[in-house]
Amino acid sequence: MKKADKVWLEKTFDELASYGRAEKGITRLPYTKEAIAAEEYIIKVMKEQGLDVWRDGLGNIFGRRRGKNDVLSPVATGSHIDTVIEGGDYDGTVGVIGALEALRMLEGEELERSIDVIVFMAEELTSFGFANVASKLMVGGSFTKDFYARVENEETGFFAALKGVGYDPENYKSAVLAKDAYKAFIELHIEQGRVLYDAGEKLGVVECIAGASRYKVTVEGRPDHSGATPMGSRRDALVAASKLVLAIQQAGFDHADQGIVATVGMMEVFPGAVCVIPGKVVFSVDIRGVEEESLSSTRHQFAEAVREIAEIDGVNITVDVLTIEHPTPMAEGIVDMLAGEAAATGAPWRRMNSGAGHDAMYMAEIVPTGMLFVPCYEGISHNPEEKAEMDDIALGVEVLAKTLKKLANTH
Amino acid sequence: MKKADKVWLEKTFDELASYGRAEKGITRLPYTKEAIAAEEYIIKVMKEQGLDVWRDGLGNIFGRRRGKNDVLSPVATGSHIDTVIEGGDYDGTVGVIGALEALRMLEGEELERSIDVIVFMAEELTSFGFANVASKLMVGGSFTKDFYARVENEETGFFAALKGVGYDPENYKSAVLAKDAYKAFIELHIEQGRVLYDAGEKLGVVECIAGASRYKVTVEGRPDHSGATPMGSRRDALVAASKLVLAIQQAGFDHADQGIVATVGMMEVFPGAVCVIPGKVVFSVDIRGVEEESLSSTRHQFAEAVREIAEIDGVNITVDVLTIEHPTPMAEGIVDMLAGEAAATGAPWRRMNSGAGHDAMYMAEIVPTGMLFVPCYEGISHNPEEKAEMDDIALGVEVLAKTLKKLANTH
Repeated sequence: MKKADKVWLEKTFDELASYGRAEKGITRLPYTKEAIAAEEYIIKVMKEQGLDVWRDGLGNIFGRRRGKNDVLSPVATGSHIDTVIEGGDYDGTVGVIGALEALRMLEGEELERSIDVIVFMAEELTSFGFANVASKLMVGGSFTKDFYARVENEETGFFAALKGVGYDPENYKSAVLAKDAYKAFIELHIEQGRVLYDAGEKLGVVECIAGASRYKVTVEGRPDHSGATPMGSRRDALVAASKLVLAIQQAGFDHADQGIVATVGMMEVFPGAVCVIPGKVVFSVDIRGVEEESLSSTRHQFAEAVREIAEIDGVNITVDVLTIEHPTPMAEGIVDMLAGEAAATGAPWRRMNSGAGHDAMYMAEIVPTGMLFVPCYEGISHNPEEKAEMDDIALGVEVLAKTLKKLANTH
Repeated sequence: MKKADKVWLEKTFDELASYGRAEKGITRLPYTKEAIAAEEYIIKVMKEQGLDVWRDGLGNIFGRRRGKNDVLSPVATGSHIDTVIEGGDYDGTVGVIGALEALRMLEGEELERSIDVIVFMAEELTSFGFANVASKLMVGGSFTKDFYARVENEETGFFAALKGVGYDPENYKSAVLAKDAYKAFIELHIEQGRVLYDAGEKLGVVECIAGASRYKVTVEGRPDHSGATPMGSRRDALVAASKLVLAIQQAGFDHADQGIVATVGMMEVFPGAVCVIPGKVVFSVDIRGVEEESLSSTRHQFAEAVREIAEIDGVNITVDVLTIEHPTPMAEGIVDMLAGEAAATGAPWRRMNSGAGHDAMYMAEIVPTGMLFVPCYEGISHNPEEKAEMDDIALGVEVLAKTLKKLANTH
């Protein structure tokens, strides 16, 4: 097999990064002209490589390297090239450009199965209120009513955006994949965390993608005058919210051994004046884990804290469930195959979980799926400073190429 | 002496409330057309009462009831009629309309000293980044550079607003009062807290106006991915900020017996996304008290908490001092005089402190000053639901009138 071509990789990352580059980082929101230009660039590269290229009813791009045996279901790999607002060069793109380089490395090899590179639309959360919109629809999963209501929203929804660039959203079901459409799916991605970076490791073979439970919490107290209200007469919503933030962190720590993380990322304080005791605080909770049991135990600890703090502090606390996602284990056979190839490189590597969500989470519902991580600088992602070393990407591409080759020759 | 006329009071509150009334509450920001119309209304009422009316170089309104002896310095009373955005009918106005009614009650009485009703401009914090701008300038105090910089700001400053309505800000020193300008100053005001309301008391004689120390605190951690960053690898700025909120509350409780209150009213979390660990949190701290010693001890406890939490949580915490105001004791003689008249009403009353700031704080720098509170419904203030009973206002006006009379006849 050829070696990964770092010069070609670097050039291709640079060229792709020119689409949507602004003063700070890269912004390619799905179905905008920046994203469309980037997609056309990727299609051009696919065609130069001799792939058969098509797009489905949602705009997802497929580039196929034909195998010898058209009867066998193909192997698939890929990721996304849309970004958050002011995102970086590597999130998603490593799994698309890396997949194309892996196919280039396989040029001249005789493979039984075809290999598809898939570029998923609308992976990021930014535009439509949900992440992974296209992959969710592709696997025809039964998602919440809220998901469909938002997807179908006539002004801000995914379907409206689709229509805006000439797709007929009525046809979205044509994009649903058959259960046996693929033999396997592998997504190469930057870790988006600092585990590999801090440990100086080069490859992470994902065993499970964490399930996220997300909540909107509203704490209601009483917005009294900060100067005129004695300490004992207060119902301070921010004091209660602060206790809850610490209780949520404690619940995370108590289950950290089981891979739980718990975060309050967003918080708004009302009325938000120096001289007014906060009467209302709204915040988000994001609990993730890879085992149902520890997720459930963490959620329970959170619910208990809500009950206790509401009682002790005399505030009303309302918890709205935004999402309850289950953990998604990767297919054992593929994990072992990736692990074998990772070990064979001689580079330091580990088996690990993915705290971040990926299209692989949804593909796993219908296809045996695996994920491979490469480190990124300080774990920074969704940020102009996102950075991955070309050596590390090349190593990941080599493991990907070898695994794809094995899978493509597996009956 | 005549009794307070509740019908006249009610009618006058209603008429004044028509200036600046919007969908929610009343908005009369200083030097806007709503405020000017309200000022013209008050001037009309003053003239109907036969007062000599003039305005100083800052627009402060003076209405004088002439006494027999022009050589003696007058007694003064008054408050403000500007409001916060969507404020209520009673904050400030009780001390202006109440003063006019007190003078009406004194009609026909022979008094040695003149009595001035003062309507202070720009009492509220909303417009210029500082509260009590006019009274600060009137007493010629030496305030911070920041105060003068903001007052003089060419776009948003107090002087720019003054200029916009035809005053020459260059002349502001003409509004500075002489040290012996007044024999005494008394401000009647709603409590803006729930102490009197909760206790069912009708009058509060203020012994001291709390001094406020205000800070802007910035906590800097690291904005990592909420899913991909294990609990032990985090530098969560919101977790540290939450600890600090609770430490500040504890410092308040520890000094509550000495009248301390401590509040975090404003907080902003950055980047403020569900899936990002907060990298930065900015919040306000407002510590108030009536004794230098307990204020200093509370500030010390806050500073210790900052140091400890920064060290334990591995975050940077910066504390910017916005204001350090000293407590302002009211003049003992006037406090005793008000207390005597309050007791004489037979209604339940108390001596108390004012947690809120008032123009009386600044007048006290050059004039023996007192304050009298009447209760307001549930302590609600700076809000469309602000409400005071006409019976309670009338009682306050009677105590005010009797005290003014005594002072006006004191040599």
